[in-house]
Amino acid sequence: MACVKGAGLVSEVFEDAAEVDDRLSGMSAIGHVRYGTSGGGGVENIQPFMFRLSSGPFAIAHNGNIVNADVLKDQLCREGAIFGSSSDTEVIAHLIHRSGRGSRHGMLDALSYAMNRLDGAVSLLVLVPGAIYACRDRYGFRPLSYGRYEDGYVFASETCALEALGIYDIHDVEPGEIVSVDKDGIHSFRFTENSLSKMCAMEYIYFARTDSTIEGTCVHTFRKNSGRILYEESPADADMVIAVPDSGLSAAIGYAEAGGLPVEMGLVKNRYVGRTFIQPSQEMRESGVRMKLSPLKSVIRGKRLVLIDDSIVRGTTSLKIVRMLREAGAAEIHVRISSPMITSPCFYGVDISSTKELLCVGKTVDEACKAIEADSLAFISEEGLLRAGSRSDLCMACFNKKYPTNLYDNKI
Amino acid sequence: MACVKGAGLVSEVFEDAAEVDDRLSGMSAIGHVRYGTSGGGGVENIQPFMFRLSSGPFAIAHNGNIVNADVLKDQLCREGAIFGSSSDTEVIAHLIHRSGRGSRHGMLDALSYAMNRLDGAVSLLVLVPGAIYACRDRYGFRPLSYGRYEDGYVFASETCALEALGIYDIHDVEPGEIVSVDKDGIHSFRFTENSLSKMCAMEYIYFARTDSTIEGTCVHTFRKNSGRILYEESPADADMVIAVPDSGLSAAIGYAEAGGLPVEMGLVKNRYVGRTFIQPSQEMRESGVRMKLSPLKSVIRGKRLVLIDDSIVRGTTSLKIVRMLREAGAAEIHVRISSPMITSPCFYGVDISSTKELLCVGKTVDEACKAIEADSLAFISEEGLLRAGSRSDLCMACFNKKYPTNLYDNKI
Amino acid sequence: MACVKGAGLVSEVFEDAAEVDDRLSGMSAIGHVRYGTSGGGGVENIQPFMFRLSSGPFAIAHNGNIVNADVLKDQLCREGAIFGSSSDTEVIAHLIHRSGRGSRHGMLDALSYAMNRLDGAVSLLVLVPGAIYACRDRYGFRPLSYGRYEDGYVFASETCALEALGIYDIHDVEPGEIVSVDKDGIHSFRFTENSLSKMCAMEYIYFARTDSTIEGTCVHTFRKNSGRILYEESPADADMVIAVPDSGLSAAIGYAEAGGLPVEMGLVKNRYVGRTFIQPSQEMRESGVRMKLSPLKSVIRGKRLVLIDDSIVRGTTSLKIVRMLREAGAAEIHVRISSPMITSPCFYGVDISSTKELLCVGKTVDEACKAIEADSLAFISEEGLLRAGSRSDLCMACFNKKYPTNLYDNKI
Amino acid sequence: MACVKGAGLVSEVFEDAAEVDDRLSGMSAIGHVRYGTSGGGGVENIQPFMFRLSSGPFAIAHNGNIVNADVLKDQLCREGAIFGSSSDTEVIAHLIHRSGRGSRHGMLDALSYAMNRLDGAVSLLVLVPGAIYACRDRYGFRPLSYGRYEDGYVFASETCALEALGIYDIHDVEPGEIVSVDKDGIHSFRFTENSLSKMCAMEYIYFARTDSTIEGTCVHTFRKNSGRILYEESPADADMVIAVPDSGLSAAIGYAEAGGLPVEMGLVKNRYVGRTFIQPSQEMRESGVRMKLSPLKSVIRGKRLVLIDDSIVRGTTSLKIVRMLREAGAAEIHVRISSPMITSPCFYGVDISSTKELLCVGKTVDEACKAIEADSLAFISEEGLLRAGSRSDLCMACFNKKYPTNLYDNKI
Repeated sequence: MACVKGAGLVSEVFEDAAEVDDRLSGMSAIGHVRYGTSGGGGVENIQPFMFRLSSGPFAIAHNGNIVNADVLKDQLCREGAIFGSSSDTEVIAHLIHRSGRGSRHGMLDALSYAMNRLDGAVSLLVLVPGAIYACRDRYGFRPLSYGRYEDGYVFASETCALEALGIYDIHDVEPGEIVSVDKDGIHSFRFTENSLSKMCAMEYIYFARTDSTIEGTCVHTFRKNSGRILYEESPADADMVIAVPDSGLSAAIGYAEAGGLPVEMGLVKNRYVGRTFIQPSQEMRESGVRMKLSPLKSVIRGKRLVLIDDSIVRGTTSLKIVRMLREAGAAEIHVRISSPMITSPCFYGVDISSTKELLCVGKTVDEACKAIEADSLAFISEEGLLRAGSRSDLCMACFNKKYPTNLYDNKI
Repeated sequence: MACVKGAGLVSEVFEDAAEVDDRLSGMSAIGHVRYGTSGGGGVENIQPFMFRLSSGPFAIAHNGNIVNADVLKDQLCREGAIFGSSSDTEVIAHLIHRSGRGSRHGMLDALSYAMNRLDGAVSLLVLVPGAIYACRDRYGFRPLSYGRYEDGYVFASETCALEALGIYDIHDVEPGEIVSVDKDGIHSFRFTENSLSKMCAMEYIYFARTDSTIEGTCVHTFRKNSGRILYEESPADADMVIAVPDSGLSAAIGYAEAGGLPVEMGLVKNRYVGRTFIQPSQEMRESGVRMKLSPLKSVIRGKRLVLIDDSIVRGTTSLKIVRMLREAGAAEIHVRISSPMITSPCFYGVDISSTKELLCVGKTVDEACKAIEADSLAFISEEGLLRAGSRSDLCMACFNKKYPTNLYDNKI
Repeated sequence: MACVKGAGLVSEVFEDAAEVDDRLSGMSAIGHVRYGTSGGGGVENIQPFMFRLSSGPFAIAHNGNIVNADVLKDQLCREGAIFGSSSDTEVIAHLIHRSGRGSRHGMLDALSYAMNRLDGAVSLLVLVPGAIYACRDRYGFRPLSYGRYEDGYVFASETCALEALGIYDIHDVEPGEIVSVDKDGIHSFRFTENSLSKMCAMEYIYFARTDSTIEGTCVHTFRKNSGRILYEESPADADMVIAVPDSGLSAAIGYAEAGGLPVEMGLVKNRYVGRTFIQPSQEMRESGVRMKLSPLKSVIRGKRLVLIDDSIVRGTTSLKIVRMLREAGAAEIHVRISSPMITSPCFYGVDISSTKELLCVGKTVDEACKAIEADSLAFISEEGLLRAGSRSDLCMACFNKKYPTNLYDNKI
Repeated sequence: MACVKGAGLVSEVFEDAAEVDDRLSGMSAIGHVRYGTSGGGGVENIQPFMFRLSSGPFAIAHNGNIVNADVLKDQLCREGAIFGSSSDTEVIAHLIHRSGRGSRHGMLDALSYAMNRLDGAVSLLVLVPGAIYACRDRYGFRPLSYGRYEDGYVFASETCALEALGIYDIHDVEPGEIVSVDKDGIHSFRFTENSLSKMCAMEYIYFARTDSTIEGTCVHTFRKNSGRILYEESPADADMVIAVPDSGLSAAIGYAEAGGLPVEMGLVKNRYVGRTFIQPSQEMRESGVRMKLSPLKSVIRGKRLVLIDDSIVRGTTSLKIVRMLREAGAAEIHVRISSPMITSPCFYGVDISSTKELLCVGKTVDEACKAIEADSLAFISEEGLLRAGSRSDLCMACFNKKYPTNLYDNKI
């Protein structure tokens, strides 16, 4: 079992296909990609993690965030474990090992044991010689899908990755389920009978790619519906609907359709931007938004706009866009947000700023509207959001503080 | 006068801002960026070109293509010139020098002389110690704009680059005009009284960024109008309009608005693609389009689509998209193209494939429709295109073979 | 406590001094550099290793090889440990932790406990917040030195690194010693009373830089002495002495001096070589030595040479050099080796090929001489080697199989 | 005819052998490598230069420096030439073209014309479709050699490059000679009957690799002889001879042999150095020499040393080495230099500092000795240098101001 990983783009880590073939031959493999983060970077935190046990090697790749990681770490440390990374993923490996059934034959039991002790968001792939195990926590916070590809199976967080391979018969790993693939085929197990349906609302609202399908609901459809419902809940008397590209576009189409308004291209993404180092002046540096988004003056001049965005976090971007549109000649700007007000942190893997930085904390909608200098502001309701996905439940803790799990030592 | 240039992204050539400050200090500068091309690459062809004359150094950056470059090269060679690059831009430098007035004081005369001997598309910046000269050929094939920035002036091909700097009072260098900037300010001259208005139609249709303004006409507005006119000329009985992203989007909005149809997001750009090295199979390699664009099945299944694209060149992409939409469940696919049929090569800088590769050469619209397997196909008319921009003239030689210039040795 | 590490040269990992200052501020630090190896590479094996315990973080950097690593790993695995790397260094961290005294206050006891359980070559640095610990195994297989620098202390494997900083008052960490540095100064402890003096002979013969001093003996002096003794033991009737550069040069000077022969520059290192991709023919590719070393024909033509090299491992290089010298016109080639015959593997960190690849295994000196096509061949005696360093003992297990430690599961 | 070049190492410019095969297929090629220099860098100055004439393309690679480059440039500019680089090599191309015989058939005449107008050091390769031309100026300042390789010929500045390919039957392009290779074989011409023998003395003394042969004389032999003669001219009463590595080593061997003294390794090159960014203190930064060279204290302590170096330019390095040896315990330091005193600049391609920086300008040997704090100092005589190479003449203008050429506008 071999491990190749590194910092940088996938194409930088695997520069030479022939070399990769050489070093990564075999029947099964797992991989992991995430954006670099400032804190917690370092090569020792790059996934997948590969471990060597007396019973053989295994590797894990993890999407999500474990709420009781610190509690478990303390306990494991007291029992003799040491941690070589600051990643909470290493906790999973220790639990698998501590289950006393680290051998391949017992991996299923070991995984069950580990998944039952972990609390939080855990979409997980485990590779052992001869088999791959995929599982999701009992809440189902983060997506994990799979489909048959030629003689084997492919797992991915988002269905769009599978569809790009031509795989259209796609299944979800269910909350509380372990799916294993080995030479005898594919098998399903449950590590708990006690599962829920708490998919993270932000996956639909912001994270997922428009053409992915999460737990049977097309993301674009969800967003378009949320735009339609947003219009029903908070109509605006306006000349046109414009989206903050790209994530606001689907909701804008829905809002426009419901309101009989035209969708217009009022903001354009600026492909000139990137790793630029020339910033003409201090003033420009401060208004980075102007560099990333350009207003289409000929479209918006003198017009009453509905501006659709997916969320308001710190509010600074919203303020800059409103000012930019105003400066470009917009007569009125009615902001409509396809998520409820974000008022609490996420402990399940969404990297929201700390509570005190959130614009909507301790503010009424009117106060928030003033803060971003809009003519009107409205957020979709929680009920509306569920309706958009024809779902009975979602994790909406960042909107309503109803955290599905115990929070342990974490502070809201 | 110093010159720094190299292969790669701007951020790769200028890695270190401090170093650049060091090497490129001064009051004025010109730059040049273009996509790498397979043939004609090589560091010796990287612009700007800097030359040393007995009268002092000068540098030039050129956008466009000179039709009589080979004729002039032969003549200049016979007169003793040698060429260190395969670029036609070097011809301009030789003409400036040959004018016998290479000194700074006479640069204006030298440029006039050169511009009057050159034929074709020449949007040009010339840097000499103490001054910058900008000029456009007498046809005005390619755009060149400028505006005041703080105590100076900025020139750019596209206005969006100026607007990103906060410059909104923007002027065009006119066809046949030379604009110079020196310590005494800005000055305008004409090198010919014989100028036309032959802006390349493809600048509006495909090249320019949506939020740029070319000769007073907003590109988005042009495209949206062309969509509207396309509907008027060739309506389709359909459920929705979808665009080939991103360049088809403005026209799609116009077509939809005129036809009272919804714009839908039926195709999504696949950001997974890039410098990928893993291509799952031979079959996948052949259908690269599936990797770059994904159909949104939940949107298009069972629907009658109008598919808006900006042009058909070889037709292979159109065919792949039609098949992909069909496979994803589209009931009908009516292709509408916001340019006329491309039937001839361009000699002014648009890199169109050779005549024999063009799908529309020697085909009727019906035959082209069959070739891309659409249910119906229509192109905007030349008259419609002019109307979209409220213009009386454009260079449309690639549609109608009416080349504004002599073609010299070039073969259609 | 922060950790920055990566693959590549030090200057590639730490590209930007300012950034490093930023990320690695503090009063104390440890580092590690080693050549990339084909097997066992991978970012997860890059040292130093940093670990997080309930009692706080610590980092370790290790030079050497642990003979009972597999035995300890099995035992630790059974006790619940898991291993994230294939490096034997991780075993040390587990032992420190298992000592039950992982806190900083008890690090000394923990290190003692670990060092007493480890068997083999362990020159080690441990960093905890506020202190650095340095120790060497009780055999003293690998060097570890230190000296005072300004207000602090610097530790290094080789004294030449300290001298480059201007440190000349240099001490060895003794076999069986732990040296700690904290805000109260420097302290010495012994983790065993049972220490030996088994410095690896190959450190003197080949590894160390000529200007380093190991346990009080200058490496150059050692090598020059070994050359002198080699002459006394195996004189050759020759015209000149030439060295295989660079490591054979000191011994060549000694041999020449003792024999009253001139040292000549008969072989030159070829700086043209490196990451070359053009290899003119298959034949050339096979004789890589000709590219790395060039014979100085004008010097050696018609001459009887003594060729001094430090060791013979597989013998392929020796054979190529002898042939190259012969081809360049040498009349006679008498090879003298400043180490005894290598006939066994090393388990303490020297990367010698497997037993069956070693030229001298199962061969007499005469047979080895024939194999490399020399006119005569001699090796220094073990006694001679000890005399060269005025030492009573060295680890010479690769020459005589007298391994100072138990070999556990390792096979000779 | 294709051209591939770039900044960086050869292995960086030609990363992919397969790609190179693709882009640089053909029967003949020329190349050029030089160290990057601070001024005059820039991709536009990278050689070879390729030019396009009406009569076809040609490319040139040039080693040396043209004394009348500025005079010729002025004249060519007045005749209509423009220069795209600051390199004097472009002048050669213009002269070839101006000869009025730019066609392939007339290249020989064109080259003759150009070489007769150029003054200074010109070792040149010219590539045209179907042929390569190699020539050296009539003084023969710089070397240029060739030999037969398989079915063709290879040219190189230094013979060691040819020997690395296994080519041992090596010829010089003679001063005043043009050697051409085409499908009919190899041909020799003379562009002047008026040739001299003014090989640059510094090629033997410093530039060339020890194992190269220049105009029939082995560089090592030259240097060893110069050491021997230096002893005869300026013996020193000392215990040992040490060299400044690597270039002083051959002369040190000669000096030692003549004086019956041992050569010792008193200075070691520090391979720790390179692109280091950590420099422990301001003091260290100032004495960069200590980082690059280490004294072997055990060897030199209490000893009377002869220190052999190849030349003294600014004297700062010599001073640092003398101080370093003194600090390491040397009893006496007698510096012997295997070149005469450098007192004038070079206009033929040796990058010597400006006159006022040269240590020996306006100083007696005694004053120079004091300046570098040595116990004694001596330089080889000019006569001695000629004797070392058994040569009747060399260019020694930097020692004696006897410049073989007119100096035009250049100031001593």
